[in-house]
Amino acid sequence: MRDNVLGLTVVLGDGRVIQTGSRARKSSAGYDLTGLFVGSEGTLGVITEIALRLHGQPQAISSAICGFDTVAGAVDAVIASIQMGIQVARVELVDTASALAVNAYSGADFPACPHLLLEFHGSDTAVAQDAATFGEIAADHGGHGFEWSSKTEDRNRLWKMRHDAYYAILASRKGATAIVTDVCVPISRLADALLETQTDIAQSGIPGPILGHVGDGNFHAILLIDPNSPSEMVTAKALAARMSERALAMGGTITGEHGVGIGKLDYMQAEHGEAWAVMGAIKAALDPYGIMNPGKLVPPTN
Amino acid sequence: MRDNVLGLTVVLGDGRVIQTGSRARKSSAGYDLTGLFVGSEGTLGVITEIALRLHGQPQAISSAICGFDTVAGAVDAVIASIQMGIQVARVELVDTASALAVNAYSGADFPACPHLLLEFHGSDTAVAQDAATFGEIAADHGGHGFEWSSKTEDRNRLWKMRHDAYYAILASRKGATAIVTDVCVPISRLADALLETQTDIAQSGIPGPILGHVGDGNFHAILLIDPNSPSEMVTAKALAARMSERALAMGGTITGEHGVGIGKLDYMQAEHGEAWAVMGAIKAALDPYGIMNPGKLVPPTN
Repeated sequence: MRDNVLGLTVVLGDGRVIQTGSRARKSSAGYDLTGLFVGSEGTLGVITEIALRLHGQPQAISSAICGFDTVAGAVDAVIASIQMGIQVARVELVDTASALAVNAYSGADFPACPHLLLEFHGSDTAVAQDAATFGEIAADHGGHGFEWSSKTEDRNRLWKMRHDAYYAILASRKGATAIVTDVCVPISRLADALLETQTDIAQSGIPGPILGHVGDGNFHAILLIDPNSPSEMVTAKALAARMSERALAMGGTITGEHGVGIGKLDYMQAEHGEAWAVMGAIKAALDPYGIMNPGKLVPPTN
Repeated sequence: MRDNVLGLTVVLGDGRVIQTGSRARKSSAGYDLTGLFVGSEGTLGVITEIALRLHGQPQAISSAICGFDTVAGAVDAVIASIQMGIQVARVELVDTASALAVNAYSGADFPACPHLLLEFHGSDTAVAQDAATFGEIAADHGGHGFEWSSKTEDRNRLWKMRHDAYYAILASRKGATAIVTDVCVPISRLADALLETQTDIAQSGIPGPILGHVGDGNFHAILLIDPNSPSEMVTAKALAARMSERALAMGGTITGEHGVGIGKLDYMQAEHGEAWAVMGAIKAALDPYGIMNPGKLVPPTN
């Protein structure tokens, strides 16, 4: 997201209104305040205007789906594709539990195995070539049932299922509440992180289908708990904590896209060390009255 | 540059050493300190380690050169190419004065007109298609003498000339010293900015060939002054000042890539307004003793 923000209007805690960025595509005139405010979770000021980068509509788009024997095979196919220089515009992992939930909810007929859902952008020839090349790479990594299409209706059907996956997963355990986790690891460690997480979830007795943004190393386990069971809540929180610890041990981050808030404050010191105190110093400098979303993201001041 | 930096080790003014970023491709765990330190010109700390993003070697590279009747035609051809979705990896403007200097220095035989030097990355078919499509667009905008090649030796010869252009320009006035300017404007205003700057330079009596990174809206006039002439220095500084003012009036920035230092401090208030004071507050918070590259970039503290 940060890369797609060109400039901001921000109201600071003392009432000043600032503009960041300019209409030029690049600048080296001072600190990158735009990047500082994006993702600051309202702790530095209230963003009231955003200038976004526009992207051209690609000439052609192809989408593809492929089943895999193992999650590791799916991840390795993505790594090999990136290394080959294939421009993968989107690549989403749907694990076996998620695929079965989508079948029940959306009337799909995914085989009971992990799947990758992909999208390629470019010229007509490029998207056909990229999809076909990916199919060959996938076959080398235990892929099967590979299909691709450049028809809009096929693509829309595919992504509709993916966008509905959260609701499909939620519906797979009656009356359940979801605790959604979010970690991101170096892609080279993604297969390990996924497998260890799946094993941990299986041993916990709580259902936890996984959805992953594989190209980024980012994934979510959707932990389905009985809202009336305090013990399931404890178990789920312990699972989520181990996911954060595992991500840090692998050189990753405790949150790929959902943010810190209050829930992940306890891991900020472990992830950032002394740099977390630096974030606190920036917060104190820009919000001396401590009124911008207090208690979130930076070290507590007491 | 900022987009290509994944993480840093920074020594702060009080001796603390911090790490920014992680090995994960994305994170939303707190403020983007990496982006804050990149381009801070040493005013927040000393960067001692940098983790850079790697880019794959493209399967094929083509380079191209094209003369134009006017600078406006060259800029419009670039804008049309970007709008067509052509992936231009590099595009450099060499104005007439620069082309003649390169002829004299590198033994080239550029016609006496503005030129674009370009590079396209991708598959064999994509780089051939992109180069050919650009040639058609160029012809619609007064382009002539268009040539392209995917041979490494042709490309190397082309970029050697471009890399030597500064020395070629310097050599074009015997004994001269160069004052290199650097502004960046929205691409929609680039042709106006270039023409007004060329007119201003022509009226000043000082030679000032122009080189431009056209895809970014960024360009440099190389003002060639007699180092023994105080009046030429005054004239050159006034030209540079008007370039900054013109860039700001067009919604651009006083520096696209060379930075602020001391020389452009006087324009920071005009570019950033109250946001400049915010940069000063960040500087004070991270470098309370004011020992990191003092006097640069942020408002003077007195």
